[in-house]
Amino acid sequence: MLNFEYYTPTKVVFGKETEKRAGELAKAFGASKVLVHYGGGSAKKSGLLDRVCDSLAEAGLPYVLLGGVVPNPRLGLVKEGIELCKKEGVDFLLAVGGGSVIDSAKAIGYGLYHNCDPWLFYDRKATATGCTPIGAIPTIAAAGSEMSDSSVITNEDGWLKRGYSSDYSRCRFAIMNPELTCSLPPYQTSCGCTDILMHTMERYFSHEKHTELTDSIGEALMRTVMHNAHVLMEDPQNYDARAEIMWAGSLSHNGLTGCGTAGDWASHQIEHELGGMFDVAHGAGLAAVWGSWARYVYQEEPEKFAHFAIHVMGVPADSGTTEETALAGIRAMEDFFRSINMPVSLSELGVHPTDDQIREMAQKCVFFGQRTVGGFKVLHAEDIEKIYRMAL
Amino acid sequence: MLNFEYYTPTKVVFGKETEKRAGELAKAFGASKVLVHYGGGSAKKSGLLDRVCDSLAEAGLPYVLLGGVVPNPRLGLVKEGIELCKKEGVDFLLAVGGGSVIDSAKAIGYGLYHNCDPWLFYDRKATATGCTPIGAIPTIAAAGSEMSDSSVITNEDGWLKRGYSSDYSRCRFAIMNPELTCSLPPYQTSCGCTDILMHTMERYFSHEKHTELTDSIGEALMRTVMHNAHVLMEDPQNYDARAEIMWAGSLSHNGLTGCGTAGDWASHQIEHELGGMFDVAHGAGLAAVWGSWARYVYQEEPEKFAHFAIHVMGVPADSGTTEETALAGIRAMEDFFRSINMPVSLSELGVHPTDDQIREMAQKCVFFGQRTVGGFKVLHAEDIEKIYRMAL
Repeated sequence: MLNFEYYTPTKVVFGKETEKRAGELAKAFGASKVLVHYGGGSAKKSGLLDRVCDSLAEAGLPYVLLGGVVPNPRLGLVKEGIELCKKEGVDFLLAVGGGSVIDSAKAIGYGLYHNCDPWLFYDRKATATGCTPIGAIPTIAAAGSEMSDSSVITNEDGWLKRGYSSDYSRCRFAIMNPELTCSLPPYQTSCGCTDILMHTMERYFSHEKHTELTDSIGEALMRTVMHNAHVLMEDPQNYDARAEIMWAGSLSHNGLTGCGTAGDWASHQIEHELGGMFDVAHGAGLAAVWGSWARYVYQEEPEKFAHFAIHVMGVPADSGTTEETALAGIRAMEDFFRSINMPVSLSELGVHPTDDQIREMAQKCVFFGQRTVGGFKVLHAEDIEKIYRMAL
Repeated sequence: MLNFEYYTPTKVVFGKETEKRAGELAKAFGASKVLVHYGGGSAKKSGLLDRVCDSLAEAGLPYVLLGGVVPNPRLGLVKEGIELCKKEGVDFLLAVGGGSVIDSAKAIGYGLYHNCDPWLFYDRKATATGCTPIGAIPTIAAAGSEMSDSSVITNEDGWLKRGYSSDYSRCRFAIMNPELTCSLPPYQTSCGCTDILMHTMERYFSHEKHTELTDSIGEALMRTVMHNAHVLMEDPQNYDARAEIMWAGSLSHNGLTGCGTAGDWASHQIEHELGGMFDVAHGAGLAAVWGSWARYVYQEEPEKFAHFAIHVMGVPADSGTTEETALAGIRAMEDFFRSINMPVSLSELGVHPTDDQIREMAQKCVFFGQRTVGGFKVLHAEDIEKIYRMAL
């Protein structure tokens, strides 16, 4: 087990009708004027935004609204948000929506706190020393941004997509009502479940020994997500299944499933470039490349993949050699992805990159030779090219 | 699944030599003068106290020392601590020791913040609205006080033992170095493992449905503790086993294993009175009564005990009726307690209460008829008497 830090200060208020507590919680965490940040029209149409605003008004908290956050949230709107907050004297940010909205709020928080262009942080030109306090009301179970330290922003100038992580951006509170996710379409639900599984797998596939508690919590989480993803295929409105997946989404990315491990994270980087070049949903992109990544790297430690096969995928312990068991586990995860209508190849994802595009993505992935990706197996540009080709 | 709140703001810094960061962390959390609170001589003898004080001095933080905390920490020393802190201008409390030391610091924190007798809170005469900030360096894996909201104090005036819970008392940080626990004697190690298991079981045995993630995390935690308790029976200095158990100790009592469940907590209340009347170790007392509690209540929902039997104790799923499987699980847990030299009856605990004493403990347990205990089965004084007798 590696030494580790675990810091999850976010107060979670979980369950039915909890959005009514938005005002009370914002006040308790020091708000005097709130920016309500949201995405497209769904939060408005569903009445959620009204309920949240009513709750703020009831708590005597003035607020201003800023909608329009899109998937892969943009720096332009972030800057607009910062200016609005300065003009209006906002001191608390309330993100109502999916991971993109929460990420956008984090970027506004950095810019507002430091009174600077927040791209400086995402571009590694500066290190944050604080962030305007944030509360979150997630409406999708996927990204885990409501309890994580990370956010990803896209700069329209050059269409650069960059992530930044800092404990300062961790939400003060997260109001999590699984009912809000019941209306999600099946494709988005499956993408979310895949993202949640991947946040755990990225931490799970690691060579550290003696991470028994962390690994077995991760295994429990993955089994729970797969079981309840199947429940939702049949019954999308099932509150209990939505609740299991929503809670798993937070725990998968708040640090708990990685305590004492170094993790891998190659699949995320490989998908990241796919998402940059083609218009694909993050979860679907992850499903499309994971099997190829797994087959490319499993021989580094087949025992870990065999353990995964047995304890997560239910592969019988006596199903052959360690290598055979490992491969059976990879196949079983791909079968699971198929069973929730996720792609397991780039062509199933609807993406057909040319040779030049594959080379370009691989180069971008390693910052043109300035870094490697992956902890389970260290990957260079040529490895990543091979994985893209395996995934075609 | 019940609506729930989950709030664990404690920053955990886990691993070898982490106590060297005490000064840096106290400073980061706003300390300007520190009370170093500790127990008997072991923290002094082992050199831990010196390393902690060196770290504070290196960070430029002045400090005062107050030792002498005993198991079942006393109000008298708490009051002495409050006076000392006031005199010295202390604004941060650093607890170095077991759960008793952390609990004592929490009581000092309440008294110092409110400038009042902290017994008011434990005696339910007042509700805390704050607490002087606390950091913890636990040296025993058991009580989980380093991440919990609770503390228990004994008032020498009438020898009343009372608990109080408030989020304000949650530690700002916990430095957890498993090496500090390697020298614990086997009996204390086994008591600690039992306490950790019980913190999870008290939450696990509950009638709520659809708590799949919470339950499976609890099951993973219990299996991990049992496995590593056996490793420590053979090899008490095993760092990795100590690390698994130390981390399990925090997670078992920080709220994670009870998200969405109501919990039971009868065994703790039943042991509490045993501890009040006889001089027994908390963990051993819990082991001595748990099996009798379980046999008395399992018929309320044999399915839950059968699930426990299969998924925690490894009882084969085809080992008979649901009731038979449930009982096999209870026997298996008692066998586990025996295997780590814990008592499974009052006589094995060395306690032989008279009929009058049993009646008195049962009455005290229900506050002389003013409350019931237990969530899995609601217990009155006559039920508790029966459980004590079953446990003889």
